[in-house]
Amino acid sequence: MMTSKKVIELFYDVVSPYSWLGFEVMCRYRNVWNIELKLRPAFLGGIMQGSGNKPPGLVPNKFLYMTQDLARLAKYFNVPLQSPSDPAEVMFKKGSLSAMRFVAAVQERQKGGDEQVERVSRELWRRIWSEDKDITEPASLSEAALKAGLSDSEIKEVLNIYTSQEIKDKLKSSSEDALDYGAFGFPMIVCHVNGKPEMFFGSDRFELMANCIGEKWLGPQPDKSAAKL
Amino acid sequence: MMTSKKVIELFYDVVSPYSWLGFEVMCRYRNVWNIELKLRPAFLGGIMQGSGNKPPGLVPNKFLYMTQDLARLAKYFNVPLQSPSDPAEVMFKKGSLSAMRFVAAVQERQKGGDEQVERVSRELWRRIWSEDKDITEPASLSEAALKAGLSDSEIKEVLNIYTSQEIKDKLKSSSEDALDYGAFGFPMIVCHVNGKPEMFFGSDRFELMANCIGEKWLGPQPDKSAAKL
Repeated sequence: MMTSKKVIELFYDVVSPYSWLGFEVMCRYRNVWNIELKLRPAFLGGIMQGSGNKPPGLVPNKFLYMTQDLARLAKYFNVPLQSPSDPAEVMFKKGSLSAMRFVAAVQERQKGGDEQVERVSRELWRRIWSEDKDITEPASLSEAALKAGLSDSEIKEVLNIYTSQEIKDKLKSSSEDALDYGAFGFPMIVCHVNGKPEMFFGSDRFELMANCIGEKWLGPQPDKSAAKL
Repeated sequence: MMTSKKVIELFYDVVSPYSWLGFEVMCRYRNVWNIELKLRPAFLGGIMQGSGNKPPGLVPNKFLYMTQDLARLAKYFNVPLQSPSDPAEVMFKKGSLSAMRFVAAVQERQKGGDEQVERVSRELWRRIWSEDKDITEPASLSEAALKAGLSDSEIKEVLNIYTSQEIKDKLKSSSEDALDYGAFGFPMIVCHVNGKPEMFFGSDRFELMANCIGEKWLGPQPDKSAAKL
């Protein structure tokens, strides 16, 4: 008997390293579980402000732990994540507003599926959370888009619209959707099960999520993203 | 070839529901993995103050999520956890200082292994996180100890020493050990691997922990604690 695919929304921001882990795992499980994955790029800064949450890294012991935790998880999940030299500068001072508007613009103008938004998001994570490179300047965004396989004319189009009111509103609206679901950080994964949204925060609930949607957790799957590019 | 058991320390406080989940899972895996589990009752209030951390439940969206998350995890892990009617009252106003001193006293005077401290801890969790009962009054502590199988004379002994300076210092010293390892909350599980401590915070790193100590995560195991009592 054919069963319809369960819809899973993944809210993320490329400034968040745990989001990268969740993103790669969910992208891999698209081919393992009977799901339809909807990428929902949003703005983490807006989520923290809207929910009244504070970044966990402000507590010194938590910051030290997260550095170690991320390194272990990255190795286990086979994601080339490496902390930048100055994570606070990257996360709190430079931030991701322009990058996420760029991602929203890519999603707005892409045709047929989330392939471009997936690739561009991955290249932005790679810049910030693997190669310690900037993601705020237009030149940085173009470079990421080029590596993601967008053509020069596509990149030009995206650069033309990513600071427009339309795109600002689109990103804001996605962030508001996340807050409405009850987000207080990213990644936030929303599984639609029998018409009811089940939320999973973070990148450490895959086994529980599988149980919830009637699938099986089979551990980190091989990374095929590099081959796809 | 015989390999020596890996030592795993579990720092916990019965005020913490995620600690209960971690405690039950680790107690079950004592019989699955080649490990020596050391129970380290400590005082969460001291950890929060010492690390400068704030309880996560103060952010409304986080509180709502945690309630749902705990219910799902409790079901999945088969732990009879149920939120008390007023969690804030239980966790922040009444607290667990006297309960954890009581647990420390049980551990101080028990003979041969952690069986009594395990049972008393479980009964205290059951009171606060399943039956919505007090854990601050001496009568409450006695009742938990009685259910845990301690004799009247053993309970009398524990009641005689649990407010002594010796026991206060013992609990403080365990909490300081946790802080020295880098704790900022509970449960904090410290695996000693090749002479190096590997810390895991929370009850959502068992699969990673297994990988780290060269064992296999086999999902939540059947709850045998009820049969043992």
